[in-house]
Amino acid sequence: MRWFEDFREGEVTGVGPVTVSEDDILSFAQQFDPQPFHVDAEAARESPFGGLIASGWHTAALYMGMFVREVLLDSASLGSPGIEELRWTAPVRPGDTLRGRSRVLEARPSEKNPKRGTVYSEHEVLNQDDVMVMRFRSYGHFARRPTST
Amino acid sequence: MRWFEDFREGEVTGVGPVTVSEDDILSFAQQFDPQPFHVDAEAARESPFGGLIASGWHTAALYMGMFVREVLLDSASLGSPGIEELRWTAPVRPGDTLRGRSRVLEARPSEKNPKRGTVYSEHEVLNQDDVMVMRFRSYGHFARRPTST
Repeated sequence: MRWFEDFREGEVTGVGPVTVSEDDILSFAQQFDPQPFHVDAEAARESPFGGLIASGWHTAALYMGMFVREVLLDSASLGSPGIEELRWTAPVRPGDTLRGRSRVLEARPSEKNPKRGTVYSEHEVLNQDDVMVMRFRSYGHFARRPTST
Repeated sequence: MRWFEDFREGEVTGVGPVTVSEDDILSFAQQFDPQPFHVDAEAARESPFGGLIASGWHTAALYMGMFVREVLLDSASLGSPGIEELRWTAPVRPGDTLRGRSRVLEARPSEKNPKRGTVYSEHEVLNQDDVMVMRFRSYGHFARRPTST
């Protein structure tokens, strides 16, 4: 179980992989992002992307799935207040295999709440060719390790 | 059909509403963000949130669904390179009804590509009590209106 104190600045953690199918791409996009280049293979071929690509929000959700299962579920995570500078840097296509890595940039105890701290991290998502498809920085709140008295 | 030239600085557009059920919250979170306060009602009651809340990525995806159906599908959208300063400002709970509004902050023709421009917008998502639950700023690429010769 990782508490706030267990996240150390500079620490790098890898997660994944996960492979995304055409059905996955269509299913997410039909619900949440039905732009033609996400839901219609023929229209996508005529688009600047030259074929079907995943919604950027789907890529974010796929990374989150890996990060939660491999990192946060074994931690005292208390949720996130937000994200800085998210960039979708290359298309994600059917059959792509994604993995991610995160690096702790800063770990800062809360000034308001002595039981909590904030971990500021950068995250990168790469495909099977080591091309970065997404990056962002996140804040995460974590409970501090209880002190025994 | 809205081209790049049709997005004017200061213009405000409202979208929605959409209501999110407990099943929606569980289903998204089981797949993409299985933290206890998103997938386990009992654990969520013991969490600082006091009950089940939607994954922040789910809130983003729900807003995107409204924005795509009501704005982007009727535009020359060419996708987005990214997001700035996303904040989850209040929990989204089962039964909440969300709507959104966007405001065009800047519309700038591409310096590299004469057929494209970038629209920089701020987006806010509000619940049925007018409490803001999420905000972010986005870049969107749009095709420029073809010139007849």
